[in-house]
Amino acid sequence: MKNAIGREIPEYIEGYGQVVPYAGAFATPPNRQRQSPPVKWNKPGESKLIAGLEAVFRRVPVKDGMTLSFHHHFRNGDGVVNMVLTTAAKLGLKNLKVALSSIFPVHAPLIEHIQNGVVTALDTNYMSGPVAEAVSRGLLAQPVIMRTHGGRARAIECGQLKIDVAFIAAPAADNYGNLNGVQGPAACGSLGYAFPDAEYADCVVAVTDHLAEYPLSPVSIPQTRVDYVVVVDRVGDPQGIVSGTTRITKEPVGLKIASLAAKVIEAAGLIQDGLSFQTGAGGASLAVAHYVRQKMEQTGVRGSFALGGITGYLVDMLEKGLFQKILDVQGFDLEAIRSLTANPNHLEIGAGFYASPFTSGCAVNKLDVVILGATEIDTDFHVNVVTGSNGMIMGGSGGHSDAAAGAKLTIVVANLLRSRLPIIVDNVLTATTPGETVDVLVTERGIAVNPGRESLRQQLTAAGLPVKTIQELKEMAEQIAEKPKAIQTGEKIVAVVEYRDGTMIDVVRQMGD
Amino acid sequence: MKNAIGREIPEYIEGYGQVVPYAGAFATPPNRQRQSPPVKWNKPGESKLIAGLEAVFRRVPVKDGMTLSFHHHFRNGDGVVNMVLTTAAKLGLKNLKVALSSIFPVHAPLIEHIQNGVVTALDTNYMSGPVAEAVSRGLLAQPVIMRTHGGRARAIECGQLKIDVAFIAAPAADNYGNLNGVQGPAACGSLGYAFPDAEYADCVVAVTDHLAEYPLSPVSIPQTRVDYVVVVDRVGDPQGIVSGTTRITKEPVGLKIASLAAKVIEAAGLIQDGLSFQTGAGGASLAVAHYVRQKMEQTGVRGSFALGGITGYLVDMLEKGLFQKILDVQGFDLEAIRSLTANPNHLEIGAGFYASPFTSGCAVNKLDVVILGATEIDTDFHVNVVTGSNGMIMGGSGGHSDAAAGAKLTIVVANLLRSRLPIIVDNVLTATTPGETVDVLVTERGIAVNPGRESLRQQLTAAGLPVKTIQELKEMAEQIAEKPKAIQTGEKIVAVVEYRDGTMIDVVRQMGD
Repeated sequence: MKNAIGREIPEYIEGYGQVVPYAGAFATPPNRQRQSPPVKWNKPGESKLIAGLEAVFRRVPVKDGMTLSFHHHFRNGDGVVNMVLTTAAKLGLKNLKVALSSIFPVHAPLIEHIQNGVVTALDTNYMSGPVAEAVSRGLLAQPVIMRTHGGRARAIECGQLKIDVAFIAAPAADNYGNLNGVQGPAACGSLGYAFPDAEYADCVVAVTDHLAEYPLSPVSIPQTRVDYVVVVDRVGDPQGIVSGTTRITKEPVGLKIASLAAKVIEAAGLIQDGLSFQTGAGGASLAVAHYVRQKMEQTGVRGSFALGGITGYLVDMLEKGLFQKILDVQGFDLEAIRSLTANPNHLEIGAGFYASPFTSGCAVNKLDVVILGATEIDTDFHVNVVTGSNGMIMGGSGGHSDAAAGAKLTIVVANLLRSRLPIIVDNVLTATTPGETVDVLVTERGIAVNPGRESLRQQLTAAGLPVKTIQELKEMAEQIAEKPKAIQTGEKIVAVVEYRDGTMIDVVRQMGD
Repeated sequence: MKNAIGREIPEYIEGYGQVVPYAGAFATPPNRQRQSPPVKWNKPGESKLIAGLEAVFRRVPVKDGMTLSFHHHFRNGDGVVNMVLTTAAKLGLKNLKVALSSIFPVHAPLIEHIQNGVVTALDTNYMSGPVAEAVSRGLLAQPVIMRTHGGRARAIECGQLKIDVAFIAAPAADNYGNLNGVQGPAACGSLGYAFPDAEYADCVVAVTDHLAEYPLSPVSIPQTRVDYVVVVDRVGDPQGIVSGTTRITKEPVGLKIASLAAKVIEAAGLIQDGLSFQTGAGGASLAVAHYVRQKMEQTGVRGSFALGGITGYLVDMLEKGLFQKILDVQGFDLEAIRSLTANPNHLEIGAGFYASPFTSGCAVNKLDVVILGATEIDTDFHVNVVTGSNGMIMGGSGGHSDAAAGAKLTIVVANLLRSRLPIIVDNVLTATTPGETVDVLVTERGIAVNPGRESLRQQLTAAGLPVKTIQELKEMAEQIAEKPKAIQTGEKIVAVVEYRDGTMIDVVRQMGD
């Protein structure tokens, strides 16, 4: 069958089940009850401290076929996923599903666990590195479920992702399971992506290398949801967890695009008191923040909040009064951690608060502007951030589709050419974020406005910005570089791409040779 | 049938249902799934602001027979319950259940709403004043359900108390439903008792008189759970919400008891680093804190945390380093609010975190010492804090049974005589807190230790404290005042007293004339 954006998807997929086709960004209401995990109890005097992972596996007990979940706040410095899966392998467990919010190169040992049948299913919002490549080549018998950050929170709360045991890597914990991410040697800042796991898993195990005095504070994840606390030598590599600082790009094309994006925001009338803003941690995204900041300073605008993945650059804007609050689901650098620790206007939020479409209102709904990237965008403004030009999985939505759906103005910034190939195509290989939620594409050679936003196009044109049609930009690119050949994929579905509401927006087929 | 402490209770009660008898403080496991309310959604651009209560009643819509819930953080200054029920009456609604965590004299208009059939059921943890008197005299056709503070959180989370609409009186709110209790003219401090309502009600309405800029912080109750925000002129009377300061008793007998209680704590070996402590806000309870503090200062002890209802006295101890943290489910005075606002070591906690027996571990489980009161205590150490000497309801467990069950050392402090009647009886009229969770009774004439705590008795005796049997204390009292006559009650059950785990510990029968 075809979904609402014309992607060909099966009605049923082995290892996934019945498919609900994507029907529009806000076309599919929840129509269900919240997940209801078993009620637990704990009596006075009972200890939650367990000596080592093997002991906790036996105590839970972890069994064949279970779903184990993990968060990705330790990024490429994570040590806990590998440690837990090594334990699983050692104990002879099979057929586990790993629900890890993002998969990084450090998680390469997953490949062996999959080859050995220890792990047979993956559920994630983003993957890059060896696991992504192996999955693209058909490593798993059943497709990986790829979600958005808000969609994962939605799937957990709605019971579509049922977690048997959540292993929560905790930079700091007390002996009764209060956890935070801002203390200890592996401090990572916000633990927001682990909030849904802690809330809804049948069993919650905290893994920490920093046991603090009871009661720990601040409390990011509370004792009421944590069943066991395991102390290990080292939860991860601090170098891989946070960068020292995140910096603005110095690359001239990137700066030009960023400057143009800031002009789009200005022309749209959004450089005004109450401005709310999300951008990524990449150098080009930060450059947009830099130009927006200049305009705010010039006009004396007092913004409302910055959202999403937080960097020192946004912290500085908070401290200068350019934003009143930061809502932090993930910190990227040491400055973000410092600020979260000390500044009461810097708030930690969970993944559901950040972006779940099925709550009484998530934070992306209050966004004025979001700056997003793309590996491809097509003439219907559908964006691909899952697969690269060779068809290999090299990312995922993360918060991309969520923020695009929520923000008043969604801007995709991209070089017109990427790896010498035009960024604009007739049809993206993998639709991730639907075009109806993308307002503007900004490239170094011009700006394209979604035809559904005619008044915005007029505003940008009136402001003297280089507005083109997306077809015009595409042709420009094709004059510089050749039109890319269609990618040949295999038949096997290696991943399904769920939209934030749980409908299927696309599938990823096995890479060709 | 008789429950485990010999109280005669029916197997089935009209308007309540099948009765599960109390079987022991930790004898009844949960055996159920968590409540699963409907999943909601909210799209970008949708406003939650509703102009007035009538409009919100129509929007929800509120219907006959629904359960409306409220919190009691505004205490006797609350304006919201009456406002909402006046609206219900005006709109002709009938047969509502009011689940209000505590009922105060200010809620007297409830009587008329009950007489008119607008309200036909009550669910609460404490009641005093005209409503309690009217209930005692048989106002309602079906029994009031009386719970503990932790038990209410448990009942909501476990689905035994199903809330259709939670009306949350909010000292401060933003237009998207983030709420806190520390800002605005009706600041009350912690909003902890409203946390379960916000988390599990089918619909959540915030009622505020202080609309702050989005995003409000701190966030006590998040936008993800709040559906509507209604701004009213005034949510309550600040004078009734908080006292300026709470003071230690100056009454000599009270001071003597308090001093003796502190000596019990010392003799039990608990004046040591890591001491955790809960006491009430009454002058006599505060006096215990005062004497404990002296001993801590003399010995240089560094306590861990203070828990429960928080006063300026405990705040001062926090600020002096005598406690490292305060866990605050309810603030009683302006100092408590100031501290919660400004001190990162003063943490707001919800009712479930505080005391629900059916979580992965609540805070009372980590208590060393709790100081509690009693209107009666019997020779089995069962305590009554529900009914007075004439059989009238004049209180309720609140956190009494919860803290008693959790703490290592539970001390009941009481004058040997109360209103010229002995406090110790053969059988309390209404068993509220079971004797197995009460360790020591401290009176001005001596100390009785629960026979189940023989080693504690030896410690107290060795310390030279005036240890008697509870029978000896009872006889002493009866030599001063006559043994009270048994209270004659009617047959009708006007209230059921649920233990924190949802089993029935006792019933309250209609007052005699």
